[in-house]
Amino acid sequence: MLRVGLLGAGRIGRLHAVNISGDEHSELVAVSDFDSTTAKDLASKHGAAARTNEEILTDPQIDAVLVASPTNTHADLIEAAVANGKAVYCEKPIDLDLARARRCQAAVAQSSVPVMIGFNRRFDPQFSRLKAELDAGSIGKSELLSLTSFDPSPPPISYVKVSGGLFRDMAIHDFDMACWLMGGAPVSVSATGGCVVDPEIGEAGDVDTAVTTLQFEGGAIAVIKNSRRAVYGYDQRIELLGAEGLLAADNVKENTIRKLTEQAEFGAKPRYFFLERYMDSYTGAWAGFVNAVRDGGKPPITLQDGVTALAIAEIATRSAQSGEVLPFSQEID
Amino acid sequence: MLRVGLLGAGRIGRLHAVNISGDEHSELVAVSDFDSTTAKDLASKHGAAARTNEEILTDPQIDAVLVASPTNTHADLIEAAVANGKAVYCEKPIDLDLARARRCQAAVAQSSVPVMIGFNRRFDPQFSRLKAELDAGSIGKSELLSLTSFDPSPPPISYVKVSGGLFRDMAIHDFDMACWLMGGAPVSVSATGGCVVDPEIGEAGDVDTAVTTLQFEGGAIAVIKNSRRAVYGYDQRIELLGAEGLLAADNVKENTIRKLTEQAEFGAKPRYFFLERYMDSYTGAWAGFVNAVRDGGKPPITLQDGVTALAIAEIATRSAQSGEVLPFSQEID
Amino acid sequence: MLRVGLLGAGRIGRLHAVNISGDEHSELVAVSDFDSTTAKDLASKHGAAARTNEEILTDPQIDAVLVASPTNTHADLIEAAVANGKAVYCEKPIDLDLARARRCQAAVAQSSVPVMIGFNRRFDPQFSRLKAELDAGSIGKSELLSLTSFDPSPPPISYVKVSGGLFRDMAIHDFDMACWLMGGAPVSVSATGGCVVDPEIGEAGDVDTAVTTLQFEGGAIAVIKNSRRAVYGYDQRIELLGAEGLLAADNVKENTIRKLTEQAEFGAKPRYFFLERYMDSYTGAWAGFVNAVRDGGKPPITLQDGVTALAIAEIATRSAQSGEVLPFSQEID
Amino acid sequence: MLRVGLLGAGRIGRLHAVNISGDEHSELVAVSDFDSTTAKDLASKHGAAARTNEEILTDPQIDAVLVASPTNTHADLIEAAVANGKAVYCEKPIDLDLARARRCQAAVAQSSVPVMIGFNRRFDPQFSRLKAELDAGSIGKSELLSLTSFDPSPPPISYVKVSGGLFRDMAIHDFDMACWLMGGAPVSVSATGGCVVDPEIGEAGDVDTAVTTLQFEGGAIAVIKNSRRAVYGYDQRIELLGAEGLLAADNVKENTIRKLTEQAEFGAKPRYFFLERYMDSYTGAWAGFVNAVRDGGKPPITLQDGVTALAIAEIATRSAQSGEVLPFSQEID
Repeated sequence: MLRVGLLGAGRIGRLHAVNISGDEHSELVAVSDFDSTTAKDLASKHGAAARTNEEILTDPQIDAVLVASPTNTHADLIEAAVANGKAVYCEKPIDLDLARARRCQAAVAQSSVPVMIGFNRRFDPQFSRLKAELDAGSIGKSELLSLTSFDPSPPPISYVKVSGGLFRDMAIHDFDMACWLMGGAPVSVSATGGCVVDPEIGEAGDVDTAVTTLQFEGGAIAVIKNSRRAVYGYDQRIELLGAEGLLAADNVKENTIRKLTEQAEFGAKPRYFFLERYMDSYTGAWAGFVNAVRDGGKPPITLQDGVTALAIAEIATRSAQSGEVLPFSQEID
Repeated sequence: MLRVGLLGAGRIGRLHAVNISGDEHSELVAVSDFDSTTAKDLASKHGAAARTNEEILTDPQIDAVLVASPTNTHADLIEAAVANGKAVYCEKPIDLDLARARRCQAAVAQSSVPVMIGFNRRFDPQFSRLKAELDAGSIGKSELLSLTSFDPSPPPISYVKVSGGLFRDMAIHDFDMACWLMGGAPVSVSATGGCVVDPEIGEAGDVDTAVTTLQFEGGAIAVIKNSRRAVYGYDQRIELLGAEGLLAADNVKENTIRKLTEQAEFGAKPRYFFLERYMDSYTGAWAGFVNAVRDGGKPPITLQDGVTALAIAEIATRSAQSGEVLPFSQEID
Repeated sequence: MLRVGLLGAGRIGRLHAVNISGDEHSELVAVSDFDSTTAKDLASKHGAAARTNEEILTDPQIDAVLVASPTNTHADLIEAAVANGKAVYCEKPIDLDLARARRCQAAVAQSSVPVMIGFNRRFDPQFSRLKAELDAGSIGKSELLSLTSFDPSPPPISYVKVSGGLFRDMAIHDFDMACWLMGGAPVSVSATGGCVVDPEIGEAGDVDTAVTTLQFEGGAIAVIKNSRRAVYGYDQRIELLGAEGLLAADNVKENTIRKLTEQAEFGAKPRYFFLERYMDSYTGAWAGFVNAVRDGGKPPITLQDGVTALAIAEIATRSAQSGEVLPFSQEID
Repeated sequence: MLRVGLLGAGRIGRLHAVNISGDEHSELVAVSDFDSTTAKDLASKHGAAARTNEEILTDPQIDAVLVASPTNTHADLIEAAVANGKAVYCEKPIDLDLARARRCQAAVAQSSVPVMIGFNRRFDPQFSRLKAELDAGSIGKSELLSLTSFDPSPPPISYVKVSGGLFRDMAIHDFDMACWLMGGAPVSVSATGGCVVDPEIGEAGDVDTAVTTLQFEGGAIAVIKNSRRAVYGYDQRIELLGAEGLLAADNVKENTIRKLTEQAEFGAKPRYFFLERYMDSYTGAWAGFVNAVRDGGKPPITLQDGVTALAIAEIATRSAQSGEVLPFSQEID
């Protein structure tokens, strides 16, 4: 049984608490939060103790930590946890600052403690099945990948201002998905961003609509379409053209009801947002982490994966600003 | 908290045990089974005690029983539970013998103890949403209902022999669905059955393929198509034509992946069988029962509903044998 | 080049005129109609002559006639045309009176002149493809056929009164479709009809909603659902369950546009009515006739097919009235 | 009646010949081709005369010409036809060389003779309906457009070599579609191309897979995905995200048949190629031209539209080669 401390008891922390408790090989033993009442409430629901980060990180009875605290604490907590020999599952991103993420990576490079970044969508039942079909060779070599990733509505402007921008905050999931499906990091990145949903987002220095094009070794291309607002719900789809066919993962709909009237055929909308759509992904990602720790293997999503996605986000941000197609490099400053 | 004794620890009993434990207002305290080892195993998984039917039925600490034992014990257990003042959730059918079901109904008629029959499909998220749309008037008056209800593969012949036949065993769910959607019992019943899947089913005196037509007061019609074998999975659909449109509940598919190749477009099959498709229905039905008991209200599916569906099954069986359209009557012998 | 006389210049006659002219192996040379102005108008559009039935039937330069006149003239015209050695394509039905249809059949039985009944739906691209898949063995032996056949709106009451009733007028197409797909005539017929759309239809002695169940040699079953009103358009679908799978022919939609909004996903409705949906069927049926005449072969749909469908309609009408399941017999009075 | 001379009797010329003859307001009177036998064959099929370009262009009896000759003759023929006062419908592109296209535009700028460029897809029933919904305001302001445009298989290498490259030859249709839907020319163009389908295409200096991103005044974005090979058929789709919803035009499938087996659900593929998919577009485009000429109005697709699409193709080609995001300008050299 993996004994887990949860660092951060906000919305995502609470979601993870349920998954930790529900997994047959892990148990939640401690919860911390900068707001101690929040920590206590969540801890008591799961028969765990409310403690400080410090206490959790240094408790030899705790095997692993799940980092679900604010982004700017991720890198510090990863380093501290690894230093204390605790396996780490950390929510994305490692940090908004690529240099800081790289220092974190360097700091833990000598350790064999497993560190996993929570790009949970790799564990979405639809996307993981698409990947399995792809790996089984069912459409041959990948040639052109298209990701649709639209949120139902924009976050508050207060959040936009500290989010790191659409590419680092939102598209980063899609960058990881693209690398995962295409089998590695790209060789070039080109992005176009616009502010067409809400001018306040533009005033905050961000874009709300973007297209990012990644080209991979050998010439294959991935294109990622992002919007902060699709009023009909959370639009999350994949289409991958290969030499022998096309694989598509369509949206998960709210229900299977159709209605036909004099006006039209009416069908269900996509599930509303990530809590509805990706619940199984979070569960699966946690199970994947627990299995890796138990087996002593490499986590299914590594710190390097987190750095790569962040580097793409950094380059895409610059490309959108400068209007240049930029080479991808792990060494970009 | 509703304290529940589970009578029967077979496949369906085990499913119910999970739902009882998972419901926030109920707890599983005791399990019985004719095989005491089976009862012990299941009880220990849920922190409950393995006991006899007798012990459970007479324990004043137990508020309700869930009857998941063999069909021929249902009526006796309902009567005994009601006599002991315990709320009852009983798996369908009440009995294969309509007369016995009616005696059970009469025996408990004077009691105010809630008794619910487990036609869980009324709680299927798809079907209940269709019903809500219908009740909201979105297609006007119902005119022609069509139910598709195909199993993926026939049960063993040993089961067929004691099942009461396709109409009482399988179509009974659809008869309840039809009455629920059309707003009452039919006025006439006509059935046609054939044995085209497996001659052994015919030798056992049963049919494996059937169409039943129900006509309702005012002339509206329901048609129910049953087959014991749809090799592509569990085909469970509703189409309801009304004065102002059509409502359809389509199958729930295994995933949302499509593949396009030189051959065709490939999509997912329906979820395989009732454990996959109707898991949420079982959970919802149990919650519906618990709520009714807590509120002191009538259960959402009554003993009378169970008798009505059984009477339709009885008449359909006779119609298929005699080749006559038969009037529906609650008084049929 | 097949020289054709068209008997009847109404709506269906005009449609056939276009197909005759469009077919590379036939030409329209004469048109008759009880209203000579109508005949002249249509004839002049196609470079044909307006003539009387008599003139057309006796003109040795005319090879074939297409009978698109009122139903009560069909049998007389078939007999007269065959007597004059002209190949005949006759709109369905042969007659509303089964006995008259049989006398017509008997009258031409000794002749080798090809006579085809216009059950054009066999040539619908969707249905004919389904049939081809079935014949190729792709779902094994047929077990349970379901036809949905709803009109968008009821005909005028004046038409209902002379139509012969829903079974002879509307369902007859579906009876032919069922026999064609199941490989022959049924062994029993059971029908349930209701008047739920418009009470005037009931006052005219007809039903507007019906379910007909046919059972075939060996036990396989077909069920036909008819309604005179589906406000969303012309609903024409097939589902056929076989030992190794299911074949479905879905509706042809008006377009491929989808719209997603905060409310729902909106899709296109089925094409409105038979002129939109079955245009290709009419063209294909005519080409099938012309080919048969040119090759000297049997027409793809025979007079016997017309008699069989009419006999089913007759028996279904009686079954719906008497509430009995009736044996099918070609000898029924 | 518009009397039309067809310049070019190849595959596209033959298709146009059918449409000219089929349109009630136009007739084909003359056909030219560099291969006089080809011209004669086509002319005789349509009751037209085989003549030279010169003869057609100078015949005062001819009202309009349809230019379906090799691309490098288009600009010359447009100029000559306009000089002779003949209305012109010219297949895309005006020329592979943007400068030549602009000289053609300048040469005819003073004339009021109608000239239309054959971007027929604007007349596709699906796309034109999407445009109508958009113009009706059904999804509010356009924000993010995505075009999928995959050919079923690459053209011969001999054609690739003279085609002007994927952007000028294939994507040009999509560039026109994007401008038409987004309401004008873009402000910037960025393209990424790869050669992943066939190395011979790369050796010929072209790409076979490409993504082009266009940004429009105000920030809205269009992304165009092209591939020379989708083995499952001709994949031609639009998705347009707006402030109030999404409009999608899905592929037109070969049929509506579904098959469900133990393996999967099988559906139809998209129609194979442009002759199958865009037949109605060609017909509609021709009718649109004829109407414009008859009404004395501006053709629905102007020479300017042809120049704009070609300029985007030119810039996209350069962007894909240089790896730069380039500003769009009508004045680009």
